[in-house]
Amino acid sequence: VIDRFEPSARTRIRRSAYARYDAATVFAILDAGLLAHIGYVVDGAPYVTPTLYWREGDRLYWHGSAAGRLFREHAQPVAVCLVVSHVDGLVLARSSFRHSLFYRSVVVFGHAAMITGAAAKRRALDRFIDRLYPGRSRMLRSISEEELAATSVMSMTIEEASAKMAAPETRGGKDVLDKEQDYEAAVWAGVIPVRTTIGRTRPDERLKVDPTPPANLVAYAEGAAFDAVLQQLAQGDTAS
Amino acid sequence: VIDRFEPSARTRIRRSAYARYDAATVFAILDAGLLAHIGYVVDGAPYVTPTLYWREGDRLYWHGSAAGRLFREHAQPVAVCLVVSHVDGLVLARSSFRHSLFYRSVVVFGHAAMITGAAAKRRALDRFIDRLYPGRSRMLRSISEEELAATSVMSMTIEEASAKMAAPETRGGKDVLDKEQDYEAAVWAGVIPVRTTIGRTRPDERLKVDPTPPANLVAYAEGAAFDAVLQQLAQGDTAS
Repeated sequence: VIDRFEPSARTRIRRSAYARYDAATVFAILDAGLLAHIGYVVDGAPYVTPTLYWREGDRLYWHGSAAGRLFREHAQPVAVCLVVSHVDGLVLARSSFRHSLFYRSVVVFGHAAMITGAAAKRRALDRFIDRLYPGRSRMLRSISEEELAATSVMSMTIEEASAKMAAPETRGGKDVLDKEQDYEAAVWAGVIPVRTTIGRTRPDERLKVDPTPPANLVAYAEGAAFDAVLQQLAQGDTAS
Repeated sequence: VIDRFEPSARTRIRRSAYARYDAATVFAILDAGLLAHIGYVVDGAPYVTPTLYWREGDRLYWHGSAAGRLFREHAQPVAVCLVVSHVDGLVLARSSFRHSLFYRSVVVFGHAAMITGAAAKRRALDRFIDRLYPGRSRMLRSISEEELAATSVMSMTIEEASAKMAAPETRGGKDVLDKEQDYEAAVWAGVIPVRTTIGRTRPDERLKVDPTPPANLVAYAEGAAFDAVLQQLAQGDTAS
Protein backbone atom coordinates (compact mmCIF):
# COMPACT_ATOMS: atom_id res chain seq x y z
CA VAL A 1 0.00 0.00 0.00
CA ILE A 2 1.30 3.40 -0.98
CA ASP A 3 1.50 6.02 1.78
CA ARG A 4 3.14 8.81 -0.13
CA PHE A 5 4.06 9.69 -3.70
CA GLU A 6 7.64 10.92 -4.09
CA PRO A 7 7.61 14.37 -5.69
CA SER A 8 9.43 14.29 -9.04
CA ALA A 9 10.58 17.08 -11.34
CA ARG A 10 7.13 17.08 -12.91
CA THR A 11 4.96 16.69 -9.81
CA ARG A 12 6.83 18.91 -7.35
CA ILE A 13 4.69 21.96 -6.58
CA ARG A 14 6.49 25.27 -6.29
CA ARG A 15 4.05 26.86 -3.82
CA SER A 16 4.79 24.28 -1.17
CA ALA A 17 2.14 25.30 1.38
CA TYR A 18 -0.48 24.01 -1.08
CA ALA A 19 1.33 20.77 -1.95
CA ARG A 20 0.37 17.36 -0.64
CA TYR A 21 2.01 14.10 -1.64
CA ASP A 22 0.45 11.73 0.89
CA ALA A 23 -1.72 9.03 -0.65
CA ALA A 24 -4.64 9.76 1.70
CA THR A 25 -5.01 13.31 0.34
CA VAL A 26 -4.41 12.30 -3.29
CA PHE A 27 -6.97 9.48 -3.03
CA ALA A 28 -9.52 11.64 -1.21
CA ILE A 29 -9.45 14.28 -3.97
CA LEU A 30 -9.67 11.60 -6.65
CA ASP A 31 -12.56 9.86 -4.88
CA ALA A 32 -14.46 13.16 -4.60
CA GLY A 33 -14.57 13.50 -8.40
CA LEU A 34 -16.32 11.92 -11.35
CA LEU A 35 -14.86 13.72 -14.37
CA ALA A 36 -11.13 13.69 -15.11
CA HIS A 37 -9.27 15.55 -17.83
CA ILE A 38 -6.85 13.17 -19.49
CA GLY A 39 -3.96 14.53 -21.51
CA TYR A 40 -2.02 12.49 -24.06
CA VAL A 41 0.09 13.00 -27.14
CA VAL A 42 -0.74 11.94 -30.70
CA ASP A 43 1.81 12.68 -33.42
CA GLY A 44 3.52 15.16 -31.12
CA ALA A 45 0.33 17.17 -30.53
CA PRO A 46 -1.49 17.56 -27.18
CA TYR A 47 -5.02 16.25 -26.64
CA VAL A 48 -7.21 16.51 -23.56
CA THR A 49 -10.37 14.46 -23.14
CA PRO A 50 -12.85 14.88 -20.28
CA THR A 51 -13.83 11.41 -19.11
CA LEU A 52 -15.60 9.61 -16.28
CA TYR A 53 -13.10 7.74 -14.12
CA TRP A 54 -12.88 5.77 -10.90
CA ARG A 55 -10.16 4.55 -8.56
CA GLU A 56 -9.36 1.12 -7.14
CA GLY A 57 -6.35 1.19 -4.81
CA ASP A 58 -3.47 2.74 -6.72
CA ARG A 59 -5.12 2.17 -10.11
CA LEU A 60 -7.38 4.49 -12.09
CA TYR A 61 -9.97 3.35 -14.63
CA TRP A 62 -11.98 5.10 -17.29
CA HIS A 63 -14.04 4.21 -20.31
CA GLY A 64 -15.63 5.75 -23.36
CA SER A 65 -14.45 8.07 -26.04
CA ALA A 66 -11.00 8.79 -24.63
CA ALA A 67 -10.09 5.19 -25.27
CA GLY A 68 -11.03 5.62 -28.91
CA ARG A 69 -8.55 8.26 -29.99
CA LEU A 70 -5.97 7.12 -27.48
CA PHE A 71 -5.82 3.63 -28.94
CA ARG A 72 -6.58 4.15 -32.58
CA GLU A 73 -2.87 4.33 -33.26
CA HIS A 74 -1.34 2.72 -30.19
CA ALA A 75 -1.35 -0.90 -29.14
CA GLN A 76 1.16 -0.28 -26.36
CA PRO A 77 0.53 1.54 -23.07
CA VAL A 78 0.28 5.28 -23.62
CA ALA A 79 1.75 8.01 -21.41
CA VAL A 80 -1.04 10.09 -19.93
CA CYS A 81 -1.44 12.95 -17.48
CA LEU A 82 -4.77 12.76 -15.65
CA VAL A 83 -6.11 15.72 -13.68
CA VAL A 84 -9.05 16.02 -11.31
CA SER A 85 -10.06 19.47 -10.00
CA HIS A 86 -12.67 20.85 -7.62
CA VAL A 87 -13.51 24.57 -7.40
CA ASP A 88 -14.38 25.64 -3.83
CA GLY A 89 -14.51 29.41 -3.94
CA LEU A 90 -13.41 32.78 -5.25
CA VAL A 91 -11.06 34.84 -3.09
CA LEU A 92 -11.35 38.62 -3.48
CA ALA A 93 -8.33 40.35 -1.99
CA ARG A 94 -7.43 44.04 -1.66
CA SER A 95 -4.98 43.88 -4.55
CA SER A 96 -5.46 42.37 -7.98
CA PHE A 97 -2.38 40.18 -7.48
CA ARG A 98 -3.73 38.46 -4.35
CA HIS A 99 -7.06 37.47 -5.91
CA SER A 100 -7.20 33.71 -6.08
CA LEU A 101 -9.25 30.56 -6.05
CA PHE A 102 -9.95 27.97 -3.39
CA TYR A 103 -9.58 24.61 -5.09
CA ARG A 104 -8.38 21.03 -4.75
CA SER A 105 -6.64 19.27 -7.59
CA VAL A 106 -4.63 16.14 -8.28
CA VAL A 107 -2.23 15.55 -11.16
CA VAL A 108 -1.37 11.92 -11.95
CA PHE A 109 1.17 10.55 -14.42
CA GLY A 110 1.09 6.99 -15.68
CA HIS A 111 0.82 4.70 -18.68
CA ALA A 112 -2.68 3.67 -19.68
CA ALA A 113 -3.49 0.30 -21.19
CA MET A 114 -6.75 -1.08 -22.52
CA ILE A 115 -8.46 -3.91 -20.68
CA THR A 116 -8.97 -6.54 -23.35
CA GLY A 117 -10.62 -9.67 -21.91
CA ALA A 118 -14.43 -9.65 -22.04
CA ALA A 119 -14.75 -10.98 -18.47
CA ALA A 120 -12.30 -8.42 -17.10
CA LYS A 121 -14.06 -5.61 -18.96
CA ARG A 122 -17.47 -6.69 -17.69
CA ARG A 123 -16.18 -6.88 -14.10
CA ALA A 124 -14.61 -3.43 -14.36
CA LEU A 125 -17.80 -1.85 -15.74
CA ASP A 126 -19.89 -3.54 -13.05
CA ARG A 127 -17.54 -2.15 -10.40
CA PHE A 128 -17.93 1.34 -11.86
CA ILE A 129 -21.73 1.10 -11.72
CA ASP A 130 -21.50 -0.19 -8.14
CA ARG A 131 -18.99 2.50 -7.15
CA LEU A 132 -21.60 5.13 -8.04
CA TYR A 133 -24.77 3.17 -7.22
CA PRO A 134 -24.08 0.47 -4.60
CA GLY A 135 -25.28 -2.97 -5.69
CA ARG A 136 -26.88 -1.67 -8.89
CA SER A 137 -25.00 -3.94 -11.31
CA ARG A 138 -26.91 -6.93 -9.86
CA MET A 139 -30.24 -5.15 -10.52
CA LEU A 140 -29.47 -4.73 -14.23
CA ARG A 141 -29.34 -7.35 -16.95
CA SER A 142 -25.77 -8.33 -17.71
CA ILE A 143 -23.86 -6.38 -20.35
CA SER A 144 -24.26 -8.03 -23.76
CA GLU A 145 -21.31 -9.16 -25.89
CA GLU A 146 -22.21 -6.50 -28.44
CA GLU A 147 -22.26 -3.74 -25.81
CA LEU A 148 -18.96 -4.98 -24.42
CA ALA A 149 -17.35 -4.85 -27.86
CA ALA A 150 -18.52 -1.25 -28.28
CA THR A 151 -16.99 -0.19 -24.96
CA SER A 152 -13.35 0.56 -24.25
CA VAL A 153 -12.08 0.37 -20.69
CA MET A 154 -8.66 1.67 -19.80
CA SER A 155 -6.66 1.51 -16.62
CA MET A 156 -3.33 2.63 -15.29
CA THR A 157 -1.25 2.50 -12.14
CA ILE A 158 -0.66 5.86 -10.50
CA GLU A 159 3.09 6.19 -11.09
CA GLU A 160 3.48 9.78 -9.89
CA ALA A 161 0.95 12.03 -8.23
CA SER A 162 0.65 15.29 -6.41
CA ALA A 163 -2.24 17.15 -4.85
CA LYS A 164 -2.75 20.89 -4.50
CA MET A 165 -5.10 22.41 -1.96
CA ALA A 166 -5.83 26.10 -1.75
CA ALA A 167 -8.14 26.49 1.23
CA PRO A 168 -8.14 28.38 4.53
CA GLU A 169 -6.43 25.39 6.18
CA THR A 170 -3.48 25.60 3.76
CA ARG A 171 -3.27 29.40 4.16
CA GLY A 172 -2.76 29.64 7.91
CA GLY A 173 -6.50 29.59 8.56
CA LYS A 174 -7.02 32.74 6.48
CA ASP A 175 -9.53 33.35 3.71
CA VAL A 176 -7.79 36.41 2.29
CA LEU A 177 -4.03 36.94 2.37
CA ASP A 178 -3.25 40.58 1.65
CA LYS A 179 0.01 42.45 1.92
CA GLU A 180 0.07 44.23 5.27
CA GLN A 181 0.03 47.70 3.70
CA ASP A 182 -3.08 46.84 1.66
CA TYR A 183 -5.32 46.13 4.67
CA GLU A 184 -6.10 49.85 5.01
CA ALA A 185 -7.71 49.95 1.53
CA ALA A 186 -11.40 50.90 1.50
CA VAL A 187 -12.41 47.97 -0.69
CA TRP A 188 -14.54 44.93 -0.02
CA ALA A 189 -12.63 41.66 0.39
CA GLY A 190 -13.74 38.15 1.22
CA VAL A 191 -14.66 34.77 -0.17
CA ILE A 192 -17.50 33.74 -2.46
CA PRO A 193 -17.90 29.99 -1.83
CA VAL A 194 -18.80 27.71 -4.74
CA ARG A 195 -20.47 24.33 -4.13
CA THR A 196 -21.50 21.48 -6.38
CA THR A 197 -24.60 19.77 -5.07
CA ILE A 198 -27.21 17.15 -5.93
CA GLY A 199 -30.49 18.42 -7.37
CA ARG A 200 -33.93 16.87 -7.14
CA THR A 201 -34.00 13.42 -8.72
CA ARG A 202 -36.20 13.03 -11.84
CA PRO A 203 -37.66 9.51 -12.18
CA ASP A 204 -38.00 8.32 -15.79
CA GLU A 205 -41.52 8.64 -17.19
CA ARG A 206 -41.73 4.99 -18.26
CA LEU A 207 -40.83 3.42 -14.89
CA LYS A 208 -42.30 0.00 -13.99
CA VAL A 209 -41.34 0.47 -10.33
CA ASP A 210 -41.93 2.92 -7.48
CA PRO A 211 -40.69 6.36 -8.65
CA THR A 212 -39.06 6.98 -5.25
CA PRO A 213 -35.33 6.35 -5.69
CA PRO A 214 -34.40 3.01 -4.09
CA ALA A 215 -32.38 2.64 -0.89
CA ASN A 216 -29.05 2.23 -2.68
CA LEU A 217 -29.36 5.79 -4.03
CA VAL A 218 -29.98 7.36 -0.62
CA ALA A 219 -26.62 9.19 -0.67
CA TYR A 220 -27.86 11.33 -3.57
CA ALA A 221 -30.09 13.46 -1.37
CA GLU A 222 -31.21 16.82 -2.74
CA GLY A 223 -28.77 19.49 -1.60
CA ALA A 224 -25.99 17.06 -0.64
CA ALA A 225 -22.45 18.06 -1.62
CA PHE A 226 -21.53 16.06 -4.71
CA ASP A 227 -17.88 15.63 -3.70
CA ALA A 228 -18.84 14.32 -0.26
CA VAL A 229 -21.35 11.88 -1.78
CA LEU A 230 -18.75 10.51 -4.19
CA GLN A 231 -16.15 10.21 -1.44
CA GLN A 232 -18.57 8.47 0.90
CA LEU A 233 -19.59 6.01 -1.83
CA ALA A 234 -15.92 5.30 -2.63
CA GLN A 235 -15.28 4.45 1.01
CA GLY A 236 -18.35 2.23 1.19
CA ASP A 237 -17.24 0.42 -1.91
CA THR A 238 -13.79 -0.27 -0.46
CA ALA A 239 -15.28 -1.49 2.79
CA SER A 240 -17.76 -3.87 1.18
CA VAL B 1 -16.51 37.58 -36.40
CA ILE B 2 -16.58 33.79 -36.38
CA ASP B 3 -19.97 32.10 -36.71
CA ARG B 4 -18.89 28.52 -36.88
CA PHE B 5 -15.74 26.46 -36.39
CA GLU B 6 -15.10 23.98 -39.19
CA PRO B 7 -14.85 20.47 -37.76
CA SER B 8 -11.40 18.99 -38.39
CA ALA B 9 -10.04 15.47 -37.97
CA ARG B 10 -9.32 16.29 -34.34
CA THR B 11 -12.45 18.22 -33.44
CA ARG B 12 -15.09 16.23 -35.32
CA ILE B 13 -17.31 14.44 -32.78
CA ARG B 14 -18.39 10.92 -33.63
CA ARG B 15 -21.67 11.01 -31.73
CA SER B 16 -23.04 13.77 -33.90
CA ALA B 17 -26.29 14.46 -32.00
CA TYR B 18 -24.13 15.89 -29.21
CA ALA B 19 -21.82 17.93 -31.46
CA ARG B 20 -22.01 21.70 -31.89
CA TYR B 21 -19.61 23.77 -33.97
CA ASP B 22 -21.41 27.12 -33.95
CA ALA B 23 -19.50 29.89 -32.21
CA ALA B 24 -22.51 30.91 -30.09
CA THR B 25 -22.59 27.49 -28.38
CA VAL B 26 -18.80 27.21 -28.07
CA PHE B 27 -18.56 30.70 -26.56
CA ALA B 28 -21.52 30.16 -24.22
CA ILE B 29 -19.92 27.02 -22.74
CA LEU B 30 -16.56 28.78 -22.42
CA ASP B 31 -18.17 31.84 -20.79
CA ALA B 32 -19.99 29.63 -18.26
CA GLY B 33 -16.66 28.35 -16.89
CA LEU B 34 -13.77 29.59 -14.82
CA LEU B 35 -11.33 26.66 -14.73
CA ALA B 36 -9.89 25.17 -17.91
CA HIS B 37 -7.67 22.13 -18.25
CA ILE B 38 -4.82 22.95 -20.60
CA GLY B 39 -2.84 20.17 -22.23
CA TYR B 40 0.60 20.64 -23.77
CA VAL B 41 3.67 18.61 -24.60
CA VAL B 42 7.12 18.92 -23.03
CA ASP B 43 9.86 16.61 -24.33
CA GLY B 44 7.23 14.40 -25.91
CA ALA B 45 5.32 13.90 -22.66
CA PRO B 46 1.76 15.07 -21.93
CA TYR B 47 1.01 17.64 -19.22
CA VAL B 48 -2.34 18.99 -18.11
CA THR B 49 -2.67 22.07 -15.91
CA PRO B 50 -5.94 23.33 -14.41
CA THR B 51 -5.98 27.10 -14.82
CA LEU B 52 -8.30 30.10 -14.55
CA TYR B 53 -9.10 31.47 -17.99
CA TRP B 54 -11.29 33.99 -19.72
CA ARG B 55 -12.43 34.76 -23.27
CA GLU B 56 -12.35 37.93 -25.35
CA GLY B 57 -13.88 37.44 -28.80
CA ASP B 58 -12.08 34.51 -30.41
CA ARG B 59 -9.14 34.71 -28.01
CA LEU B 60 -8.61 32.89 -24.71
CA TYR B 61 -6.42 34.16 -21.87
CA TRP B 62 -5.04 32.59 -18.73
CA HIS B 63 -2.39 33.29 -16.14
CA GLY B 64 -0.51 31.66 -13.34
CA SER B 65 1.38 28.45 -12.94
CA ALA B 66 0.55 26.96 -16.34
CA ALA B 67 2.60 29.65 -17.93
CA GLY B 68 5.59 28.62 -15.84
CA ARG B 69 6.14 25.11 -17.09
CA LEU B 70 4.80 25.91 -20.52
CA PHE B 71 7.37 28.61 -21.14
CA ARG B 72 10.36 27.44 -19.20
CA GLU B 73 11.66 25.78 -22.33
CA HIS B 74 9.77 27.53 -25.11
CA ALA B 75 10.08 31.07 -26.39
CA GLN B 76 7.84 30.34 -29.38
CA PRO B 77 4.07 29.82 -29.33
CA VAL B 78 3.21 26.41 -27.92
CA ALA B 79 0.53 24.04 -29.22
CA VAL B 80 -2.13 23.55 -26.58
CA CYS B 81 -5.46 21.79 -26.21
CA LEU B 82 -7.75 23.62 -23.79
CA VAL B 83 -10.87 21.96 -22.39
CA VAL B 84 -13.75 23.37 -20.35
CA SER B 85 -16.37 20.99 -18.92
CA HIS B 86 -19.56 21.29 -16.91
CA VAL B 87 -21.26 18.32 -15.22
CA ASP B 88 -25.06 18.61 -15.24
CA GLY B 89 -26.34 15.25 -14.09
CA LEU B 90 -26.10 11.49 -13.78
CA VAL B 91 -28.30 9.38 -16.03
CA LEU B 92 -29.35 6.01 -14.65
CA ALA B 93 -30.69 3.77 -17.40
CA ARG B 94 -32.11 0.24 -17.33
CA SER B 95 -28.91 -1.28 -18.71
CA SER B 96 -25.34 -0.66 -17.62
CA PHE B 97 -24.40 0.34 -21.17
CA ARG B 98 -26.92 3.20 -21.35
CA HIS B 99 -25.84 4.86 -18.11
CA SER B 100 -24.39 8.23 -18.93
CA LEU B 101 -23.72 11.79 -17.92
CA PHE B 102 -25.38 15.08 -18.79
CA TYR B 103 -22.56 17.52 -19.50
CA ARG B 104 -21.37 20.37 -21.66
CA SER B 105 -17.78 20.60 -22.86
CA VAL B 106 -15.64 22.50 -25.31
CA VAL B 107 -12.30 21.42 -26.76
CA VAL B 108 -10.13 24.16 -28.27
CA PHE B 109 -6.87 23.82 -30.18
CA GLY B 110 -4.48 26.72 -30.66
CA HIS B 111 -0.99 28.05 -30.11
CA ALA B 112 -0.42 29.95 -26.88
CA ALA B 113 1.96 32.85 -26.55
CA MET B 114 3.00 34.86 -23.54
CA ILE B 115 1.96 38.50 -23.30
CA THR B 116 5.22 40.33 -22.71
CA GLY B 117 4.68 44.09 -22.49
CA ALA B 118 4.00 45.41 -18.96
CA ALA B 119 1.15 47.65 -20.12
CA ALA B 120 -0.51 44.85 -22.12
CA LYS B 121 -0.16 42.46 -19.18
CA ARG B 122 -1.64 44.97 -16.76
CA ARG B 123 -4.57 45.65 -19.08
CA ALA B 124 -5.23 41.93 -19.53
CA LEU B 125 -5.19 41.28 -15.76
CA ASP B 126 -7.49 44.25 -15.15
CA ARG B 127 -9.89 42.89 -17.74
CA PHE B 128 -9.88 39.50 -16.00
CA ILE B 129 -10.72 41.10 -12.64
CA ASP B 130 -13.48 43.12 -14.30
CA ARG B 131 -14.82 40.10 -16.18
CA LEU B 132 -15.48 38.42 -12.82
CA TYR B 133 -16.18 41.53 -10.71
CA PRO B 134 -17.48 44.40 -12.88
CA GLY B 135 -15.52 47.60 -12.37
CA ARG B 136 -13.38 46.16 -9.56
CA SER B 137 -9.99 46.89 -11.12
CA ARG B 138 -10.64 50.62 -10.62
CA MET B 139 -11.36 50.02 -6.91
CA LEU B 140 -7.96 48.38 -6.36
CA ARG B 141 -4.51 49.97 -6.32
CA SER B 142 -2.75 49.36 -9.61
CA ILE B 143 -0.63 46.26 -10.02
CA SER B 144 2.99 46.97 -9.04
CA GLU B 145 5.94 46.36 -11.36
CA GLU B 146 7.15 43.60 -9.05
CA GLU B 147 3.75 41.86 -9.09
CA LEU B 148 3.61 42.17 -12.84
CA ALA B 149 7.02 40.58 -13.22
CA ALA B 150 5.89 37.65 -11.07
CA THR B 151 2.81 37.02 -13.21
CA SER B 152 2.63 35.26 -16.54
CA VAL B 153 -0.28 35.95 -18.86
CA MET B 154 -0.84 33.82 -21.90
CA SER B 155 -3.27 34.10 -24.76
CA MET B 156 -4.20 32.29 -27.92
CA THR B 157 -6.59 32.50 -30.82
CA ILE B 158 -9.16 29.73 -30.98
CA GLU B 159 -7.96 27.95 -34.13
CA GLU B 160 -10.24 24.93 -33.90
CA ALA B 161 -13.08 24.24 -31.51
CA SER B 162 -15.96 21.90 -30.93
CA ALA B 163 -18.63 21.68 -28.27
CA LYS B 164 -20.37 18.60 -26.93
CA MET B 165 -23.72 18.75 -25.15
CA ALA B 166 -25.37 15.74 -23.57
CA ALA B 167 -28.70 17.00 -22.28
CA PRO B 168 -32.38 16.18 -22.80
CA GLU B 169 -32.46 18.70 -25.67
CA THR B 170 -29.74 16.81 -27.56
CA ARG B 171 -31.38 13.44 -26.85
CA GLY B 172 -34.78 14.04 -28.42
CA GLY B 173 -36.13 15.58 -25.22
CA LYS B 174 -35.46 12.40 -23.24
CA ASP B 175 -33.67 12.00 -19.94
CA VAL B 176 -33.11 8.25 -20.26
CA LEU B 177 -32.58 6.46 -23.58
CA ASP B 178 -33.06 2.75 -23.11
CA LYS B 179 -33.30 -0.02 -25.66
CA GLU B 180 -36.97 -0.74 -26.26
CA GLN B 181 -36.76 -4.26 -24.82
CA ASP B 182 -35.24 -2.94 -21.59
CA TYR B 183 -38.19 -0.71 -20.64
CA GLU B 184 -39.97 -3.68 -19.04
CA ALA B 185 -37.17 -4.13 -16.49
CA ALA B 186 -38.23 -3.67 -12.85
CA VAL B 187 -35.41 -1.29 -12.03
CA TRP B 188 -35.38 2.40 -11.11
CA ALA B 189 -34.22 4.75 -13.86
CA GLY B 190 -33.97 8.51 -14.05
CA VAL B 191 -31.70 11.50 -13.68
CA ILE B 192 -29.82 12.81 -10.65
CA PRO B 193 -29.15 16.49 -11.49
CA VAL B 194 -25.88 18.09 -10.38
CA ARG B 195 -25.59 21.85 -9.93
CA THR B 196 -22.74 24.19 -9.06
CA THR B 197 -23.97 27.16 -7.09
CA ILE B 198 -22.81 30.19 -5.16
CA GLY B 199 -22.62 29.83 -1.38
CA ARG B 200 -22.99 32.49 1.30
CA THR B 201 -20.34 35.18 0.93
CA ARG B 202 -17.81 35.47 3.79
CA PRO B 203 -16.55 39.06 4.27
CA ASP B 204 -12.91 39.26 5.39
CA GLU B 205 -12.46 39.86 9.12
CA ARG B 206 -10.24 42.93 8.67
CA LEU B 207 -12.58 44.91 6.39
CA LYS B 208 -12.51 48.71 6.54
CA VAL B 209 -15.81 48.95 4.65
CA ASP B 210 -19.40 47.72 4.97
CA PRO B 211 -19.29 43.89 5.10
CA THR B 212 -22.27 43.67 2.74
CA PRO B 213 -20.87 42.81 -0.69
CA PRO B 214 -20.97 45.90 -2.92
CA ALA B 215 -23.35 46.36 -5.86
CA ASN B 216 -20.87 45.08 -8.46
CA LEU B 217 -20.97 41.63 -6.81
CA VAL B 218 -24.76 41.36 -6.87
CA ALA B 219 -24.67 38.53 -9.44
CA TYR B 220 -23.03 36.28 -6.84
CA ALA B 221 -26.27 35.74 -4.91
CA GLU B 222 -26.42 32.76 -2.57
CA GLY B 223 -27.91 29.81 -4.44
CA ALA B 224 -27.35 31.27 -7.94
CA ALA B 225 -26.08 28.86 -10.58
CA PHE B 226 -22.35 29.48 -11.00
CA ASP B 227 -22.37 28.85 -14.76
CA ALA B 228 -25.26 31.29 -15.29
CA VAL B 229 -23.52 33.96 -13.19
CA LEU B 230 -20.29 33.64 -15.18
CA GLN B 231 -22.17 33.71 -18.49
CA GLN B 232 -24.18 36.76 -17.47
CA LEU B 233 -21.03 38.60 -16.36
CA ALA B 234 -19.31 37.71 -19.65
CA GLN B 235 -22.19 39.23 -21.59
CA GLY B 236 -22.20 42.35 -19.44
CA ASP B 237 -18.50 42.75 -20.02
CA THR B 238 -18.90 42.46 -23.78
CA ALA B 239 -21.74 44.97 -23.79
CA SER B 240 -19.92 47.56 -21.67
